[in-house]
Amino acid sequence: MLNIPALKGIYRYHEFIGPVLPLDAVIYLGEGHTPVVEANDRLRAMAGLRFYYKNDGQNPSASFKDRGMASALSYLQYLIRQGHVEDVLAICASTGDTSAAAALYASYFQGKVKSAVLLPRGKVTPQQLAQPLGSGAAVFEIPGVFDDCMKIVEALSENYRVALLNSKNAWRILGQESYSYEIAQNFEYDMAEKVVVVPIGNAGNITAVISGFLKFLDTGIITHLPKIIGVQSEHANPVYKYYLEPEAEKRKFEAVAVRPSVAQAAMIGNPVSMPRVIHLVDAYNKKSGRQNVFFSEVTEQEIMDCQLTANRNGHVACTHGGECLAGLIRARQTGQVDGHETAILDSTAHALKFSGFQDMYFQNQFPPEYEVVPDPKLINTPQLVRPADLKHVPEPGKPLYGDELAHFVRRISAEIATLLDLKKI
Amino acid sequence: MLNIPALKGIYRYHEFIGPVLPLDAVIYLGEGHTPVVEANDRLRAMAGLRFYYKNDGQNPSASFKDRGMASALSYLQYLIRQGHVEDVLAICASTGDTSAAAALYASYFQGKVKSAVLLPRGKVTPQQLAQPLGSGAAVFEIPGVFDDCMKIVEALSENYRVALLNSKNAWRILGQESYSYEIAQNFEYDMAEKVVVVPIGNAGNITAVISGFLKFLDTGIITHLPKIIGVQSEHANPVYKYYLEPEAEKRKFEAVAVRPSVAQAAMIGNPVSMPRVIHLVDAYNKKSGRQNVFFSEVTEQEIMDCQLTANRNGHVACTHGGECLAGLIRARQTGQVDGHETAILDSTAHALKFSGFQDMYFQNQFPPEYEVVPDPKLINTPQLVRPADLKHVPEPGKPLYGDELAHFVRRISAEIATLLDLKKI
Repeated sequence: MLNIPALKGIYRYHEFIGPVLPLDAVIYLGEGHTPVVEANDRLRAMAGLRFYYKNDGQNPSASFKDRGMASALSYLQYLIRQGHVEDVLAICASTGDTSAAAALYASYFQGKVKSAVLLPRGKVTPQQLAQPLGSGAAVFEIPGVFDDCMKIVEALSENYRVALLNSKNAWRILGQESYSYEIAQNFEYDMAEKVVVVPIGNAGNITAVISGFLKFLDTGIITHLPKIIGVQSEHANPVYKYYLEPEAEKRKFEAVAVRPSVAQAAMIGNPVSMPRVIHLVDAYNKKSGRQNVFFSEVTEQEIMDCQLTANRNGHVACTHGGECLAGLIRARQTGQVDGHETAILDSTAHALKFSGFQDMYFQNQFPPEYEVVPDPKLINTPQLVRPADLKHVPEPGKPLYGDELAHFVRRISAEIATLLDLKKI
Repeated sequence: MLNIPALKGIYRYHEFIGPVLPLDAVIYLGEGHTPVVEANDRLRAMAGLRFYYKNDGQNPSASFKDRGMASALSYLQYLIRQGHVEDVLAICASTGDTSAAAALYASYFQGKVKSAVLLPRGKVTPQQLAQPLGSGAAVFEIPGVFDDCMKIVEALSENYRVALLNSKNAWRILGQESYSYEIAQNFEYDMAEKVVVVPIGNAGNITAVISGFLKFLDTGIITHLPKIIGVQSEHANPVYKYYLEPEAEKRKFEAVAVRPSVAQAAMIGNPVSMPRVIHLVDAYNKKSGRQNVFFSEVTEQEIMDCQLTANRNGHVACTHGGECLAGLIRARQTGQVDGHETAILDSTAHALKFSGFQDMYFQNQFPPEYEVVPDPKLINTPQLVRPADLKHVPEPGKPLYGDELAHFVRRISAEIATLLDLKKI
């Protein structure tokens, strides 16, 4: 019983993530070992190959960020127990998944670790506030924009005793490598003809994925490296643009000015992990003996259409999951993948976190800068059933009774049966 | 590879849930095998015993209802393949977890199964609409209240070819039994000194939990039956009241008029599964050789306070998870459990689905009928950091530069350091 935390979660791969950690320092809050769900025939036909979603939205804070936080906070717990640190403040300036995950994991150590989230005043939805507030983080609203919040976080980390939980923290990347270990295990360690599709934002995710597969290859746990497809939106595509140049010596990284994207976490024009990407992509291709990392660019329209289509076929993909499906379709069209391969797509968060974009789509309310125009076939809105000839309908506080109620039920159910083309028994 | 669906999810217990189903009829959308997360020292001290949350909110549609839907839709797929049914409409009138789960599982069979959700006009939040709309269900708004919707669903099921996916469907209960099988497996089949705490609404859940443990006992997989605590809110307590009478012959079931509850799914005054509860509780106690099923009643205040406290200590419990913690504390006080036992609490859905109640608590906006008054220690709201002496602050479109920016960053970070009592490096 005492060992349950250590035997579960991302630390099932303890040897790869953090063998220096004693088992009893490991935190388990229910992260990792997320489901792999096969696409149905319709989606397979649409993509041109068999594929699966790996639902990282089924992590405890509903995003993949829990993997890295479980690792970073386990290490922090170890440092606290060793007496190396005390009164830790875990701080970040994310409006989304990172702050939710940081606040959740910090809250498990109430009394030993505090967490604080900095957000730009008036720019945050109640949904984005709910998770860090619920986990008890100190939430500060700052005048200005997101960049101003980041500068203040940096100033705090330079001058005060705080634990940085952004993706520069190496333990976070180690934790995120568990995503690759799980894929290998899910597919019985047979990575031949497999394609792993991931969205790129700050590029921490793709470096963790590449690094994870390299470690499993180096230790002989897998014998093939899967193909990797990194996907970017046209609205935030610096990595894609960098690799457009086929000759490595001629490549030159240039940050881009991002435009609004439904793949919120990917709206990054100057990824902090770019040097690591360049190094790891090179190493991965060399170990593969051929080009085995590819980059794909998609439109905002494709991202939304693919997310909604996936969710109409049994998935709970977020916009980043939609981005991966769009990237896979593009990769199939350009020949980066072919029909006998099997793809695994990363849905980094739960659809529930992105219902605002779904609402904007269904109500055709995207601001023009997103460049998303709803496809009428994908719009779904409630229909009021209120036959005009029906004189009396119930209202809250004014129920119908007897024959009136029976007539109402008969008329409404007949109307619904007509709308849905139901057959009589 | 082909067998991944059958080897995962709730159908890992195929022999217990539905051995008549061929493996290839089984649907797997990522349900089941939800995490079991141990409470930290603070929570353990508060409850008076060691306990764990089992996070059923980490199912794909973010509630335990996926267990039953995976089972019911697997059976439906089998019937479709056998040619017994076609053009199925899966229908329900739930505003919450049931419709989200039914719509998700039906959507995997787009083209073969349609789903429809009936909701009372003007009574549903955008959050409640998002899941069934996203899964492509036909969503109908009906004049009147929830009971009117239910009457129409019943009329449809009596007169048209529709698949009823409410909890009368036996396959749903079979699927939900997987919750017990997983607990047994999580605790290495040692159910001695274990206490399983579940909320009671329509009572489908507690019957499934009891039935599951009985099957594992009957087949020798476990040798002890865990103690069961069923929890009800004072605002919807017919099962609790029934069992207040210690002598079985004198018990008389009476439906109650429910009052508003934050444990929305438990707001049921006349549970459809009551006859089954009576039968199973009796059988369970007999097999245990002593009373082994207990009932606990809690206030709305306790439910909210416990949910928020759990989430401030590393959990992602919904209000029903809060209800279970409140019920455990009450059971410890009344002597139904003692300090050397270990409890497993059911968080039936993800906290994300219930952020509206959290907002009401933090903003002290509960309507009086809920009888919830926020505890100031549990309120968490954003703080604006805007020192009065700071002349210039950035605004969207009006950034600061140079010395002005540096001064702003210095002042704000110093202010935050003071608020958080941070130590200088």
